[in-house]
Amino acid sequence: MLNFSVSNLFFATATEADKAPLVLTGVLLTLAIIYITSKLGGELSRLVNLPPVLGELVGGVIVGVSALNLVVFPETSEASTSQIMNFLQFFTPMNPEFLSEVFASQSEVISVLAELGVVVLLFEIGLESDLRELKSVGYQAAIVAVVGVVAPFALGTVGLIYFFHFPTIPAIFAGAALTATSIGITSKVLSELGYLKAKEGQIIVGAAVIDDVLGIIVLAVVASLAKTGEVNLTQVILLIVSASAFLIGSILLGKFFNQSFMAIADKLKTRGNLVIPAFTFALLMAFLANVIHLEAILGAFAAGLVLDETDKRKELDKQVIPIADVIVPVFFVTVGARVDLSVLNPLIPENRAGLAIASFLIVVAIIGKVITGWAVFGQPNINRLAIGIGMIPRGEVGLVFAGIGSTSGVLSKPLEAAIIIMVILTTFLAPPLLKLVLKKPETGVPTTDNSVKELASTK
Amino acid sequence: MLNFSVSNLFFATATEADKAPLVLTGVLLTLAIIYITSKLGGELSRLVNLPPVLGELVGGVIVGVSALNLVVFPETSEASTSQIMNFLQFFTPMNPEFLSEVFASQSEVISVLAELGVVVLLFEIGLESDLRELKSVGYQAAIVAVVGVVAPFALGTVGLIYFFHFPTIPAIFAGAALTATSIGITSKVLSELGYLKAKEGQIIVGAAVIDDVLGIIVLAVVASLAKTGEVNLTQVILLIVSASAFLIGSILLGKFFNQSFMAIADKLKTRGNLVIPAFTFALLMAFLANVIHLEAILGAFAAGLVLDETDKRKELDKQVIPIADVIVPVFFVTVGARVDLSVLNPLIPENRAGLAIASFLIVVAIIGKVITGWAVFGQPNINRLAIGIGMIPRGEVGLVFAGIGSTSGVLSKPLEAAIIIMVILTTFLAPPLLKLVLKKPETGVPTTDNSVKELASTK
Repeated sequence: MLNFSVSNLFFATATEADKAPLVLTGVLLTLAIIYITSKLGGELSRLVNLPPVLGELVGGVIVGVSALNLVVFPETSEASTSQIMNFLQFFTPMNPEFLSEVFASQSEVISVLAELGVVVLLFEIGLESDLRELKSVGYQAAIVAVVGVVAPFALGTVGLIYFFHFPTIPAIFAGAALTATSIGITSKVLSELGYLKAKEGQIIVGAAVIDDVLGIIVLAVVASLAKTGEVNLTQVILLIVSASAFLIGSILLGKFFNQSFMAIADKLKTRGNLVIPAFTFALLMAFLANVIHLEAILGAFAAGLVLDETDKRKELDKQVIPIADVIVPVFFVTVGARVDLSVLNPLIPENRAGLAIASFLIVVAIIGKVITGWAVFGQPNINRLAIGIGMIPRGEVGLVFAGIGSTSGVLSKPLEAAIIIMVILTTFLAPPLLKLVLKKPETGVPTTDNSVKELASTK
Repeated sequence: MLNFSVSNLFFATATEADKAPLVLTGVLLTLAIIYITSKLGGELSRLVNLPPVLGELVGGVIVGVSALNLVVFPETSEASTSQIMNFLQFFTPMNPEFLSEVFASQSEVISVLAELGVVVLLFEIGLESDLRELKSVGYQAAIVAVVGVVAPFALGTVGLIYFFHFPTIPAIFAGAALTATSIGITSKVLSELGYLKAKEGQIIVGAAVIDDVLGIIVLAVVASLAKTGEVNLTQVILLIVSASAFLIGSILLGKFFNQSFMAIADKLKTRGNLVIPAFTFALLMAFLANVIHLEAILGAFAAGLVLDETDKRKELDKQVIPIADVIVPVFFVTVGARVDLSVLNPLIPENRAGLAIASFLIVVAIIGKVITGWAVFGQPNINRLAIGIGMIPRGEVGLVFAGIGSTSGVLSKPLEAAIIIMVILTTFLAPPLLKLVLKKPETGVPTTDNSVKELASTK
């Protein structure tokens, strides 16, 4: 063993004992590349007057599996195609199996950091949201969410059966993949445009949270339908009950927990006396949401909403901002990096069927969400188009549908590719469109480039 | 496949497809436990007038492998002994192999987060250190470092040969394990006591950095000696040259890079315009240090030193503090959690030989470092005892020696256990001792409870 463990010091071939430092080296370099990408992308995007997050996503595509192969993941790429792994090989030669292990571990760490990134993002969005404002638009958000789930689901399923002659189960599966808005992307764009606290912003965020929960319930229904041909009602009801209990419970808990939180933060005298209790709460809520089969981000959002009510909010906001600054880009850049643009290439014959279906799904995905703005009642001066467009970006949940549908054999290859294309395009289309419609003066909200930082400092 | 992927939604046994969400769930819960531990430990430690970091370490021991088995790692524990994994089993039953995989991935993520934690800590320590002050005590630091490497190495090796009749190679190996001070623990304690910027603090930090490099060189020499019976001079010289080039190069680079950094930070208009370039620089320097077989933390420290010279330092300090607050505790708590106190149990007969050797090693480890204070020249009013005590805590490098020595068969079981006990006790002894001697009035520096936060805000 010794000659292996020690050999690393002498630039010879590395093995098992050297794994931990190599994984760390890979993570350090990957994070540096992610940061450079996010800043270059964000700044260039801003220069051409688009939301920075779009640049981070596009930058991610460039460093990802579609182009430079710097930030890639085992799901799509061999270890030998990762340029970071090849770079490490230059300093520490590794045999193929060991290289794969280091690559897998490094990718796992980056994936979890990305997940923690979106958890922190939603915690911050929760902190910036105003529970009273959100309650006051609660009914509107619920209607937007329900219309935004039912419309694309119905249009998509029926269209796939009638126009493309798909069997019912795959059509329902693909229709279901059209339902859930990506809270992360849409809320980040709203925040960058300074619209998060506007009525439109709060309706969109509230609706996105609700339709995320609806999407998870739809997934459970559709998946059990695909599996056994019938719906397991008990489990679906259990999911609905636990989801409702979680959301309502966390809001009710809010009042009580605020007091305890303040008391704890006041008593603590060591460093991190405010941010550590806040993060502990956010992590526990994210854990709870995850464990009852909701998403971690819903827990983090709820935690942010609860803590938004405390007197310490301003100070907490200020401390959360730099933390979000260093962890959130990992999420956006890796979302871009995972996108495989090759499914869009019409020169590959197998892609053509998928592209035709994708065009249909995209139209349905956009129409099905844009109309939701007109479902809002009692708000005469609201920017209905902005609400509809804000709901367009699909994300994680859509890809989860595609993944489960694909491994289960329910979805054909073209249909799976079509869903992925739909997720990609809706995600990339929404930020510029949102910026465009929110520039209109009738919204009555300033349209200058308000960053979250400015918002936080003027709070 | 479908029935497995989907089954997770219905609380049935989980498999491969469900790994990512389970790993995330485990990480979320582990982080929450780490935060609660660090705050409870830190606050209790402060209440009894000890440095908070000692409480974080002790808290780590309590939640770790020695007691509660909440935060444990595959190197010492089976997946089934992890209470977090058992808790997850309650919600999502897993078969033993799958449980091991989830446990391994989750532990890997926490380990890398801990490494990133100490990288951020050393970056912050670098930012708080003053390059000019460090240069002005450079010679003193070098002498403290050299004496602190030579004395324990010589005393330890000779003592093991004469008193314990060990063969030369194991004795040299164990002597070498006595050399390197843990920068992380000692600098954190200094920072908590408000002594980091004092002359004593800067000498200790400078000496710890230098003896870390010396320790790595000693490791290379000793390991090649153990392997082939002779020293590979070319490789050792290569290591010395690259280490020197790195440290001197990064200081020279400082002046040039300061300008570029300021120019970049000024041009960027999106969020994180200051902290992201700073972290990118720190990560790249940490990567560089790691890749030339130094330690990542040396690169991060150098990056902090360089950026300390910029006009943006104050603003950067403020933003780095909350980031350090959420990531650094992962390092200290896991350091404690990895400590296996069972080696200290004298009721186990096999431990007794180790305990006798350990007592000797601890005495040598303390004396060998405490005398370094009296090697400082030209500083009449300096607290020599504080400098010596500040150098006492051994850490990572000592454990690396124990690990390599054990897997290579050079170290016998009692000798390996003795090294581990020495690392544990020096680490836990130094913080209270340092607090004690730094209370003495002759240092001329305020001894009130200055936290880093207060230092940063009054800078």
